[in-house]
Amino acid sequence: MQQLKNASKLKHIVLTSHPIRPVSKPPRIHWGEINPRKRGAIVGTLTTAAHRNVIGTHSGSYSVYRALAVASGALHPNHRADLTNTFPVVPIGPHPSWGNPDRIVSLDPFGAIVDEVYADLYKQGYDIRPTIAITKAHINLPEIQDAIAKGRLAVDGKILKDGGSLVVTKVAIEPVWHLPGLAKRLDVSENELRRALFQQTGGMFPELVTHPDLQVFLPPIGGMTVYIIGDVEAITDPHRELAVRVHDECNGSDVFGSDICTCRPYLAHGLEVCTETAQAGGAGVFVYLRKEGRALGEVTKFLVYNARKRQEGGDRADAYFNRTECVAGVPDMRFQELMPDVLHWLGITQIDRFVSMSDMKYNAIVNSGIKIIHRIPIPDELIPADAMVEIAAKQAAGYYTEKTVPNLVTLGKIKGRSLSD
Amino acid sequence: MQQLKNASKLKHIVLTSHPIRPVSKPPRIHWGEINPRKRGAIVGTLTTAAHRNVIGTHSGSYSVYRALAVASGALHPNHRADLTNTFPVVPIGPHPSWGNPDRIVSLDPFGAIVDEVYADLYKQGYDIRPTIAITKAHINLPEIQDAIAKGRLAVDGKILKDGGSLVVTKVAIEPVWHLPGLAKRLDVSENELRRALFQQTGGMFPELVTHPDLQVFLPPIGGMTVYIIGDVEAITDPHRELAVRVHDECNGSDVFGSDICTCRPYLAHGLEVCTETAQAGGAGVFVYLRKEGRALGEVTKFLVYNARKRQEGGDRADAYFNRTECVAGVPDMRFQELMPDVLHWLGITQIDRFVSMSDMKYNAIVNSGIKIIHRIPIPDELIPADAMVEIAAKQAAGYYTEKTVPNLVTLGKIKGRSLSD
Repeated sequence: MQQLKNASKLKHIVLTSHPIRPVSKPPRIHWGEINPRKRGAIVGTLTTAAHRNVIGTHSGSYSVYRALAVASGALHPNHRADLTNTFPVVPIGPHPSWGNPDRIVSLDPFGAIVDEVYADLYKQGYDIRPTIAITKAHINLPEIQDAIAKGRLAVDGKILKDGGSLVVTKVAIEPVWHLPGLAKRLDVSENELRRALFQQTGGMFPELVTHPDLQVFLPPIGGMTVYIIGDVEAITDPHRELAVRVHDECNGSDVFGSDICTCRPYLAHGLEVCTETAQAGGAGVFVYLRKEGRALGEVTKFLVYNARKRQEGGDRADAYFNRTECVAGVPDMRFQELMPDVLHWLGITQIDRFVSMSDMKYNAIVNSGIKIIHRIPIPDELIPADAMVEIAAKQAAGYYTEKTVPNLVTLGKIKGRSLSD
Repeated sequence: MQQLKNASKLKHIVLTSHPIRPVSKPPRIHWGEINPRKRGAIVGTLTTAAHRNVIGTHSGSYSVYRALAVASGALHPNHRADLTNTFPVVPIGPHPSWGNPDRIVSLDPFGAIVDEVYADLYKQGYDIRPTIAITKAHINLPEIQDAIAKGRLAVDGKILKDGGSLVVTKVAIEPVWHLPGLAKRLDVSENELRRALFQQTGGMFPELVTHPDLQVFLPPIGGMTVYIIGDVEAITDPHRELAVRVHDECNGSDVFGSDICTCRPYLAHGLEVCTETAQAGGAGVFVYLRKEGRALGEVTKFLVYNARKRQEGGDRADAYFNRTECVAGVPDMRFQELMPDVLHWLGITQIDRFVSMSDMKYNAIVNSGIKIIHRIPIPDELIPADAMVEIAAKQAAGYYTEKTVPNLVTLGKIKGRSLSD
């Protein structure tokens, strides 16, 4: 341990705001090339600075914990991942979208197969790490068991097993941002984007402004997980139906079942629709995106809950978005414009059943060139009483509904529980 | 929108690796002072650089999304939070631990009441933001409904309502790190810690090494959520029992019910024990920490799953930790040493029922000066078949069990499902 403790002392500090002189060449990145050899490997290693061709490093936020592990001597700073047997359990892609630099800008399409396509570089000592991992799992949710008990779903022994276990392929994806593409997507200049990313994070990564040559950024944020139900090939087969839900994290409801919103009920419903669709010969894709509280974080979310419940007249659908704007400055920070990337990575061109009422998600997907046939609202019986404020406010603001959109008078009448109840 | 779009252009770039000359004074921080006025406000604002007294900024990782909101013109860079009606629904603290600079090093004890205790600074134009938010909620989990149906829990109308809703006080907490205290806790020099945090994140925040005068760091990582069941006052009352579970995030199990581990079953069991204890006149504290996959992240976790399932002899309890070490370099990066801070923030000095088998968590808590009376292992019937590999490997490595610790021969026999099943 003591030996390891001293290991980090051996390296002198290189301030990244000053140019680094490479002693050996980092791979060049040609974003949007469909041939991974021509595209070039993404190298976010910390062992050999000269090999790096990105801003930031791997594992998103968890790089901070990695730093603690090195500081405390638990981890050798030169540790290089042994990737034996870690390769994907099923192949995904390549798809034509992988060769379009504008179609995917926030993840590395080759992230799951780096040890295969860059094997020679790895042998040369480059520390190249997967940003995508593909595995299989059995998942078991009480709501799916309930759907079986109530006869809405039937055990088939292959997709849905005895006891309610659902067989899934699951994919974890870390963010990899191509800054020129991201800027284009958000309709700002790359310079403005880089400056804001630097200034508005309190000065994170000076390279954002000092190194325009580094075009790829591994941001310290959460990524996403994809749950695929049914055959992976069915996702891109035009003759087989596809159900999709893109779900933004809401820990309070997803894990703990808080009744102020519809997140967990819609999550369960989404998985049910995905299962049905897979059982009918198609596939279901459920994407879980780490964007807690509309990407404002949970502290802001709870502050807003208090402000909503305490405002004059109590928690009201007609004032639902106002309180978030007062506290956070915007009602939402999720940037759905980036979300379709994962669908393009999967090769999706048409969604038959889109399990979401969100107009922001719908527009982002359709504007990115994917066709949506049906939109599936959450069934009324799944909406908790206290979540009527949220759902009515969202319907009035443009959420998809098959019913009458609530007007201002109706909205003013829809109230939530007070804090003292 | 266009006006907002140009707002960020007006500010010229200040590279934070060079000293900033303040035009007005940032508050001085005296970490560990029990008087918040003497302790000084934590100012992580981005509107007035001269007011800042920290490295980094608020909202953890979500500051990156905030930067996108400013870049895209959706958010004015000078937005200051309107905190009207956001104050805590119940007071927590102050407790004697708040005045001990070594007892709490990873959160701001005054984080929930900044608009109260620093009201004058706020009026002077300082943009001070809460790092803690305290609200109330009703949560409803299928497992709690099941416990009621099976007669293990009874509806009392106050803590546990008809339909299985549990009334909770919940607290969201963002990380606020006092670097000298953190270094002491991890038993490294502050310089080593700062250097590792800078180097091992790919050069995040040069101020870590150029500004030793800035001792507080708001790291871009996830925080935690505390669910309190029963009276908040019962937590610190020596005559009332306290149940505690500290639960590290595992999205695959917590949300989706993956059967490869015991996370969700133990989570549900923890909430059940907390509810029982509260109903008997005590309180339950459930802490949810955002440390996915032992703080290695989900990509690493899935890579390890593949390597475990594919190794010679299949997924085996006797090789459980090895595969994580090969991929990540360490079996675990959670740094339980920091976890007890939240318990001290709550004023806890004794835990009557500790719902965890983890020796790392137990040792961290006991070494921090909190007494633990009983340890509650997960009931056997809640362990999924495929999770036997995990639980046996952990028992052999020191996890608390009331049964015989599995030996090497037994461990070698405990196998999990293969990837093709």
